[in-house]
Amino acid sequence: MNTKIIGRYLGTLLMLEAVFLIPPTLISLFNGETKAFIGLILTIPLALGIGLLLRILCRRYIHTLYTKDGLVLVACSWIALSLFGALPFAISGEIPNYIDSFFEVVSGFTTTGASILKDVESMSRGLLFWRSFTHWLGGMGILVFLMALEPSQKGNSFTLHVMRAESPGPSVSKLVPRIGLTAKLLYSIYMTMTLACIFFLLLGGMPLFDSICIAFGTAGTGGFGIRNDSMASYSPYLQTVVTIFMALFGVNFAVYHLLLRRPRAALKDEEVRLYFIIMLASIGIITLNILPQIGSLGQSLHQAAFHVSSIMTTTGFAISDYNLWPPLSHGILLLLMVLGACAGSTGGGIKTARLLLLYKSMRAGIKRMLHPRSVQVITLNGKAVDPSILHGLSVYFSAYIFILVLSFLIVSMDGFSVVTNFSAVLSCLNNIGPGLDVVGPAGNFSAFSIPSKLVLTLDMLLGRLEIFPLLALLNPELYRAKNK
Amino acid sequence: MNTKIIGRYLGTLLMLEAVFLIPPTLISLFNGETKAFIGLILTIPLALGIGLLLRILCRRYIHTLYTKDGLVLVACSWIALSLFGALPFAISGEIPNYIDSFFEVVSGFTTTGASILKDVESMSRGLLFWRSFTHWLGGMGILVFLMALEPSQKGNSFTLHVMRAESPGPSVSKLVPRIGLTAKLLYSIYMTMTLACIFFLLLGGMPLFDSICIAFGTAGTGGFGIRNDSMASYSPYLQTVVTIFMALFGVNFAVYHLLLRRPRAALKDEEVRLYFIIMLASIGIITLNILPQIGSLGQSLHQAAFHVSSIMTTTGFAISDYNLWPPLSHGILLLLMVLGACAGSTGGGIKTARLLLLYKSMRAGIKRMLHPRSVQVITLNGKAVDPSILHGLSVYFSAYIFILVLSFLIVSMDGFSVVTNFSAVLSCLNNIGPGLDVVGPAGNFSAFSIPSKLVLTLDMLLGRLEIFPLLALLNPELYRAKNK
Repeated sequence: MNTKIIGRYLGTLLMLEAVFLIPPTLISLFNGETKAFIGLILTIPLALGIGLLLRILCRRYIHTLYTKDGLVLVACSWIALSLFGALPFAISGEIPNYIDSFFEVVSGFTTTGASILKDVESMSRGLLFWRSFTHWLGGMGILVFLMALEPSQKGNSFTLHVMRAESPGPSVSKLVPRIGLTAKLLYSIYMTMTLACIFFLLLGGMPLFDSICIAFGTAGTGGFGIRNDSMASYSPYLQTVVTIFMALFGVNFAVYHLLLRRPRAALKDEEVRLYFIIMLASIGIITLNILPQIGSLGQSLHQAAFHVSSIMTTTGFAISDYNLWPPLSHGILLLLMVLGACAGSTGGGIKTARLLLLYKSMRAGIKRMLHPRSVQVITLNGKAVDPSILHGLSVYFSAYIFILVLSFLIVSMDGFSVVTNFSAVLSCLNNIGPGLDVVGPAGNFSAFSIPSKLVLTLDMLLGRLEIFPLLALLNPELYRAKNK
Repeated sequence: MNTKIIGRYLGTLLMLEAVFLIPPTLISLFNGETKAFIGLILTIPLALGIGLLLRILCRRYIHTLYTKDGLVLVACSWIALSLFGALPFAISGEIPNYIDSFFEVVSGFTTTGASILKDVESMSRGLLFWRSFTHWLGGMGILVFLMALEPSQKGNSFTLHVMRAESPGPSVSKLVPRIGLTAKLLYSIYMTMTLACIFFLLLGGMPLFDSICIAFGTAGTGGFGIRNDSMASYSPYLQTVVTIFMALFGVNFAVYHLLLRRPRAALKDEEVRLYFIIMLASIGIITLNILPQIGSLGQSLHQAAFHVSSIMTTTGFAISDYNLWPPLSHGILLLLMVLGACAGSTGGGIKTARLLLLYKSMRAGIKRMLHPRSVQVITLNGKAVDPSILHGLSVYFSAYIFILVLSFLIVSMDGFSVVTNFSAVLSCLNNIGPGLDVVGPAGNFSAFSIPSKLVLTLDMLLGRLEIFPLLALLNPELYRAKNK
């Protein structure tokens, strides 16, 4: 393994995190929030110092990275960033327990949005901003950000390995032959759309601070709010803006790039089509299902659209308690939670692309069973899908199920209901945020024991990084041979 | 497709069913149950007549059968046997609605044990016997029974296709080179073990009628009882006999055959080992978990062992309401429900062999991901597993998930809780019997609407036949070319 290059990148990332901590520090300074300011300002030199030390220690490196190095780098980066990112909360005392702070920050970076906070409104503005900012950074991926900064002449395969490991979905589409440029393009689209979201929120009279925080939560499909009732007390216009932007951030960003160049091809993208078909069908069914309970058709449609968009993109914002809806709507939301958004978006879950590939390979498998001598090719958007991707798919699903079962058993020891335990694990593993029962949209994760919180934190990371980078860390070989 | 041979076998099976209806008819005659007797005695000539008609219509046939013919034969047989098997209940008026009767008989043949009956004790003895008898017949497979009757010199591949389609698990192991003889051996072991179960129940003072019915429910891992409280009011000795026999009937029957010839190899069987390890570990954890609630260690162990054995083998007998147990025990039981027993046993569920193969192929997949040039061979009991079996595995899991989701959505329209709907579908698809909430061990399936009951009936068949035979029926090609 190429330890040196991993160390070097880790160092750069920590220094970058120190830079990211400057805006919240300034906000807490201007708002006179002493404790938050101390927490933030103390973390900056710590991250900077250790980052610099790592860079100095690992200054001689070979610029080649293999698949497993990419996986290990991604896993280590996310853990390190979260360990440092949690410090301001713990030092300031706003989240007294470090494990809780770690849970909250991992929930932020992984764009889960699950919270252990009972009263968000009592938090300082500086730390609220940092909390929402982690969503935005984690959404598109911090390593992808780093790659976007790199001069693009550097090794293509290097960047590709890292992006493959960090980006959600079964495969990474290179937008342009140069993968470094791809990272730049992705972040440009991401930033433009975030600014558009802020603009439309400001237009509806939302204060600037709120607009930025909510836009971060929307763009990263994270779901951290800054009010205790999430989005319920904002105006219907603002809720609609968020509904639309959540849905847009759940689309594969590669398709936006395609939209600018070859709009026809973009509109024919199979995954995005399926994503919108499922979304609209769910909104339709839920609207009719909750109509008798809500009364007005407009209001039913509004609530159905908001929650379908929020749940399917695994954002987790809420404008009412959908736990009170009839079982059919309930069931649909649960299934959407598991499914999630498009690959290559900021959303979590299993991803629509995987559903599509699963369905296609099932159909091909059944045909092959009935006609053993026939040849079945699986295509996506007109191109044959590489068998290694299909193989990775079944490994992903197996690992997903084993992790789900194991986490569920550990969390069950806390003594909450089966529904609470199962939905908590599912919610963290799919980076959704709220679950059902104790951890429902009106509840939070504070009641769990420390071991359960650690398991759920791990689940959030496993979900965001799609299992393999963290599994690569468990490979005993890593610790046998120091350099290779 | 070879329509003629399918028709001919279907005819033979219906005539065989008429023979199987004789014992319950005699029982209702001796007990003076007029209505049940009429229901049973009227069904016999009907099944006999239509069976004979089919045999005459399809008397000229070619003795070759392909995989898909085997699948279609199995699917048609199970549906036809259930359609006729439901008649006595409907004609006698003991289950007035034919859909309900059909549900009950499919639940019997598929060894699910889910019931729409609220009061079992008010049923006639003749129909109670028939209900339990369907468990025994469905457990090992009715077509396997027919194959056991056939003179064994007939086509090996023919019998193999049918047995593959009807036997649970990812593959069929031929015990002896002649597959016809395999069917005979399987039924001999099955019958011997059932007789042993009856013997031990009689020894504990259980009346003969009860012993036979309970032994049928145990052997088929079905779970239909003849008392309203399932097994709760029987003595601890009788409950222990059933605990042990349920566990034994969940073992792959091929291993029993091996045990007689090469006991060392049998004891090393990876699946059976894993099956017992999971069973004992679950009993241990649940015993400790329910100890504070139950009080005595002996009683905790007794209840834990009974329910783990009952749920893991997907039998569904109960001696207390495990819904009241703490969440950890609850969670373990839920997972055991999904897992099920060994392949090649009478139990349902996903099967321990599939878990084992899933785990092994996941491990191999991860290794391959980290070392792209390495070669990974998956073995079971020291032999390399055929890639087609591994491929079938992933198709099976995909289809399983799609069926689960679709059924869940349809059943959700009835308006029961999410837990009720989900556990009802899971229970039927895994041939368990009881679920949770409304369909828990103290409840039943009578409250569901007709469409939901039909979906759940289909799920039971899909679960028992492991999806593919019924999917083969959906193949449009079947209806295009009449003969091939």
